[in-house]
Amino acid sequence: MHAALLRQQLAAFLSPAELPDDDAPFLLDQRKRYTSTDCVVVQPASVENVKKTVRFCAQHRIAITPQGGNTGLVGGSVAHGGIVLNLGKLNRIRHINLADNAITVDAGCILQNVQTAAAEHGRFFPLSLASEGSCQIGGNIACNAGGLNVLRYGTMRDLVLGLEVVLPNGELVSHLHPLHKNTTGYELKHLFIGSEGTLGIITGATLKLFAPPQTTETAWVGLDNVQAAISLLSNIKNHFAERLCSFELVSRFALELSAAHSRLAEPLHAEWHILLELTDSLPRHDLQDELAEFLCQNGGEHSIIAQNDQQRRDLWTLRENISAAQRTLGTSIKHDIAVPIAHTAAFIEQCGRDLTAQYPDIQLVVFGHLGDGSLHYNTFFPNELGDSVYRREEAVNATVYRHVLHNHGTIAAEHGIGTLKKSWLPQVRTADEIALMRAIKSQLDPNHLFNPNKLLPD
Amino acid sequence: MHAALLRQQLAAFLSPAELPDDDAPFLLDQRKRYTSTDCVVVQPASVENVKKTVRFCAQHRIAITPQGGNTGLVGGSVAHGGIVLNLGKLNRIRHINLADNAITVDAGCILQNVQTAAAEHGRFFPLSLASEGSCQIGGNIACNAGGLNVLRYGTMRDLVLGLEVVLPNGELVSHLHPLHKNTTGYELKHLFIGSEGTLGIITGATLKLFAPPQTTETAWVGLDNVQAAISLLSNIKNHFAERLCSFELVSRFALELSAAHSRLAEPLHAEWHILLELTDSLPRHDLQDELAEFLCQNGGEHSIIAQNDQQRRDLWTLRENISAAQRTLGTSIKHDIAVPIAHTAAFIEQCGRDLTAQYPDIQLVVFGHLGDGSLHYNTFFPNELGDSVYRREEAVNATVYRHVLHNHGTIAAEHGIGTLKKSWLPQVRTADEIALMRAIKSQLDPNHLFNPNKLLPD
Repeated sequence: MHAALLRQQLAAFLSPAELPDDDAPFLLDQRKRYTSTDCVVVQPASVENVKKTVRFCAQHRIAITPQGGNTGLVGGSVAHGGIVLNLGKLNRIRHINLADNAITVDAGCILQNVQTAAAEHGRFFPLSLASEGSCQIGGNIACNAGGLNVLRYGTMRDLVLGLEVVLPNGELVSHLHPLHKNTTGYELKHLFIGSEGTLGIITGATLKLFAPPQTTETAWVGLDNVQAAISLLSNIKNHFAERLCSFELVSRFALELSAAHSRLAEPLHAEWHILLELTDSLPRHDLQDELAEFLCQNGGEHSIIAQNDQQRRDLWTLRENISAAQRTLGTSIKHDIAVPIAHTAAFIEQCGRDLTAQYPDIQLVVFGHLGDGSLHYNTFFPNELGDSVYRREEAVNATVYRHVLHNHGTIAAEHGIGTLKKSWLPQVRTADEIALMRAIKSQLDPNHLFNPNKLLPD
Repeated sequence: MHAALLRQQLAAFLSPAELPDDDAPFLLDQRKRYTSTDCVVVQPASVENVKKTVRFCAQHRIAITPQGGNTGLVGGSVAHGGIVLNLGKLNRIRHINLADNAITVDAGCILQNVQTAAAEHGRFFPLSLASEGSCQIGGNIACNAGGLNVLRYGTMRDLVLGLEVVLPNGELVSHLHPLHKNTTGYELKHLFIGSEGTLGIITGATLKLFAPPQTTETAWVGLDNVQAAISLLSNIKNHFAERLCSFELVSRFALELSAAHSRLAEPLHAEWHILLELTDSLPRHDLQDELAEFLCQNGGEHSIIAQNDQQRRDLWTLRENISAAQRTLGTSIKHDIAVPIAHTAAFIEQCGRDLTAQYPDIQLVVFGHLGDGSLHYNTFFPNELGDSVYRREEAVNATVYRHVLHNHGTIAAEHGIGTLKKSWLPQVRTADEIALMRAIKSQLDPNHLFNPNKLLPD
């Protein structure tokens, strides 16, 4: 159906506010790599109107691309034809249940607003990531978002108690009452989590809340090599247990870039750096001394512990600004990968050596969440201008992913598959697994109208 | 195929040790309610022989009922015809990876042996339940077992990093390398967890390990009503956070039975009792004082805190002996249910009143894991002799489950659906959900050979 006609028909049951005049913010993805074409953007303001829209589309065989905050990095919510169904107007905090430590929210709630709502009730919602000011809970769930607190609290998958989903047939599946134990048939909730909008539209979710941290200790540790970081991680985790909230790896080069960009001094000089943070729900004045003593006894003596909030913020600024700082190097070919922690050192060493041999001019910016084995492994080519770097993408990916798979890792740790990586899926899943995924897709969405051409290979 | 002939054909590729002479222990379920008939028991000693057995059965259209420690309570591994494939001979601890805090084991490992192996490496595997000396990891996964430590560490689902599964077509799906983040298509692992052997045979698993507790504080608290227990739970969880490991509810009647059976004094007198435990990975001499002060300030002043290991064991004996003690009341109709914690008081009050009105002679033994909202809700009828009590089962279940569903709960918290509850599945899942479950089943097991007549309604 032609976009103008489609818009006119949608206006029969959607209000003008649900059909935004300015489509532009919804059509270009965050990395400016993908542009949606020939589609109508709708923003239903109620679950009922999501259902109506889905039924209308099912009846007329119109494709639906669900979209949250449009902060994805793999082209997961780009549309060619049909509608982009943006959840942004479905943004109520529905209910907080303190007995069950649970919050029920609309899918279009911005992550930061959920964090704030929890805090207002004396609770803590731990998902935290760079785009938390604009990404939406529904997108976080659809992509199984990760971020900075996975080590202690898990990924988004671990934080979901219940889901409300509009299926491609327009029916609602709603399990929003918090059940901490439930084994009644196959666990379908976990199919929707991470399905990137291909199986249904998440319209609401019940999420776990936690006790807020009362004590925070932050340290920056310099180490000679990644293996030393792995040993430190293993020991600190077995000593401080779930208090270990973050354990971030930063290469020397990444730190240099970020320090210059942030106009901050490098906290210390070393080949590899760790930013680690302990939190405790109880006020613990002795935690800093314990951490200092532990670091001295476990190879972390080349370190500093933040003595006040300003120092803590500065250390985090150095970590968080790496993404922005690296842009001075040009356009990058990025990799969102994870390997077993035990394999991280081998992967970084082998893959770095191989890429440098292939591309003598390559610049590697390596950093990430070592605490859960996931790395942002970004490659830059100073001799390539702008997007011309992408002509190297296929070959660079082939090398990086070969080393990832050799080290039993994954090509998609926390950003999903989307458009960008779907041709790689057969490398990481068996034919039986992909056949099962296709059967699940066909059962729920026989006409393949939901987020077409994403995730599953053609 | 006749059992004797089938056994003969299996002997062509299985060793005599893999075809046990004494079938009896595998044919009668733990509660002595279900007896397998007309089937051959096999115990393959290798994954390869599981695959061979599955391929043989696929070829000859022979049903396979997978079985772990045969400790299930819902008739989940009872067979009528075909083979019972018991995993007990597949019982190696394969690998411990300290960097990733992960242990990889054969599915037939007894839970206690996994706990021990973790402890030998200075780590802690937290799943703990009454049958831990005989239940197997594969069965724990297939049924998504719960138990005593769910509040802090989650159910078995939360403890699985990776699975190895033999599909009904004889192919292996193996993802045993520990990845703490991975979003590559639909999460199939969570389909197998809790699928009760209907989708494949779990042959191996990689499980999460944790830092061992160094401090344990155990308290027994007497309260006037369940609502007071819910308030205490909410407050203590928000104060001590993940230190709260257990929060068990015991009714006065349940305690009286258990105290008499255990020849122990009742720790204190009250209508409702809580056994709670805090653990910490660090040695914390001040934790007991903090707990005492907290209880005084939060309505838990009628309480005792164990002062030594013997007192701690005695308190736990009182909790753990309820199951054995209640047998003096005769045969029971048991319910393994969960409701949102916020609804627990209402459920107990409403359901108890309704049952007592219907059956003036009823005796209710109510206890369970209030910390995660799940209850063992057991009903006894002193005027019914032995199994004659079961003639009341349908009516009692109807009342109990009506109140469970009214309070947004589940009819199967931690024991699964099996044979016992499959007719109830359509009450808790929508037609769309059951259709999707059937599609998944048909894709993997088109001839419905894996654990037939379980879980999914006829």
